[in-house]
Amino acid sequence: MRPEIVLFGDSITDQSFRHGGWGASLTDIYSRKADIVVRGYGGYNTRWALFLLNHIFPLGSTTPPVATTVFFGANDAALSGRTSERQHVPLEEYKENLRKIVHHLKEFSPTMIIVLITPPPVDEEGRQEYAKSLYGEKAMKLPERTNEVTGTYANGCVEVAKELGVDSINLWSKMQETQGWQKKFLSDGLHLTADGNGVVYEEVVKVLNGAWLSASEMPLDFPHHSQIDPHNPEKAFQQTCL
Amino acid sequence: MRPEIVLFGDSITDQSFRHGGWGASLTDIYSRKADIVVRGYGGYNTRWALFLLNHIFPLGSTTPPVATTVFFGANDAALSGRTSERQHVPLEEYKENLRKIVHHLKEFSPTMIIVLITPPPVDEEGRQEYAKSLYGEKAMKLPERTNEVTGTYANGCVEVAKELGVDSINLWSKMQETQGWQKKFLSDGLHLTADGNGVVYEEVVKVLNGAWLSASEMPLDFPHHSQIDPHNPEKAFQQTCL
Repeated sequence: MRPEIVLFGDSITDQSFRHGGWGASLTDIYSRKADIVVRGYGGYNTRWALFLLNHIFPLGSTTPPVATTVFFGANDAALSGRTSERQHVPLEEYKENLRKIVHHLKEFSPTMIIVLITPPPVDEEGRQEYAKSLYGEKAMKLPERTNEVTGTYANGCVEVAKELGVDSINLWSKMQETQGWQKKFLSDGLHLTADGNGVVYEEVVKVLNGAWLSASEMPLDFPHHSQIDPHNPEKAFQQTCL
Repeated sequence: MRPEIVLFGDSITDQSFRHGGWGASLTDIYSRKADIVVRGYGGYNTRWALFLLNHIFPLGSTTPPVATTVFFGANDAALSGRTSERQHVPLEEYKENLRKIVHHLKEFSPTMIIVLITPPPVDEEGRQEYAKSLYGEKAMKLPERTNEVTGTYANGCVEVAKELGVDSINLWSKMQETQGWQKKFLSDGLHLTADGNGVVYEEVVKVLNGAWLSASEMPLDFPHHSQIDPHNPEKAFQQTCL
């Protein structure tokens, strides 16, 4: 049974198998070592994610994943009173929902590596341009998300991770260390470009390497083809397979 | 339990999650509908693949995949007496091995959609350039694979598919319909470029659509976010989840 790594999150997880996507890159690097399982739900906030927990991570499973990334907050941080209000979740509830998710995952498997990922920064100008491209002059005049408010959710996410002793990636901070992050990492002010996906990929790999899940140190599932004697192939498969 | 689609094959399957990869694109299109499980083994021929069958597709499993792509032949078709001789499998044995794989899969699940994919065409000049880039003047002078011989394996693959009543994709023929296929679809004369991956992706999607596995017609696992009433989220989840 090959170990599983689950990617649980919103659209940024759901879209992680598009060109240059961080989910696809993880699948590639963990080839023949671990299966990457994507559970991304576009538009979802943590409040709605709670409804999925028992279905995606059913307690009592005999084969829980070895690691799970939890990547919500971009929708929770949508502002109340603006066009994406329906997705808004107050900061304290967001933190409490993250706690519930982590508690559930720990109950699911006490040894699972849990990685909380903060929402990425928001490029408000990019969001506005994107809205205009969709709706023209009818586009909202006031931003539906701001970078500052999303930053408070990112901090809240990191706080919860520290409080509960799990790993975290502060994507909001990390991305803003690079000049021009607004266009380099974000395609519409919120979702990720290939470069933005690259940042998530590198940060997730760092965390997994720092645990006991470094792809380069994990064994292949079956013999490397160079280890197979063409005149006696059985031999290479005896140890691992028979 | 989400349906699974297994990609079983050699390096062309193993590398299908790199940029533009056909495995990644399938994962994206089947998002929230089916899990794509990659079982690609670089350098493997069908003779060695047989050793894996009982492990990857253990008879008696209660949750067999709904579909499996079987994509071998590029290594079987390596020429005897040349530098990749160790991977060579005679044509008749290749066909017989494919039959064994199909029989096993049918025993595993009589309803599984089985898609045999032929090896892609070989760009002998591209192979030679690639060998020179690795080994300089020490590179082999005679090709280790030829397009003509690989074509006989492609025909053999299609014949087995017809004989056993399963689907097939003649990638060898399909790719050669496009002018400039040598560089457009192949990166080193054998493995696929992003465009080459695109061809495999399109052909696999066509076959799955023609069966009962069209992604656009499959239901989402959980409610689309627009269907969730923010004031009464329970309601949307009641039918699918509770």
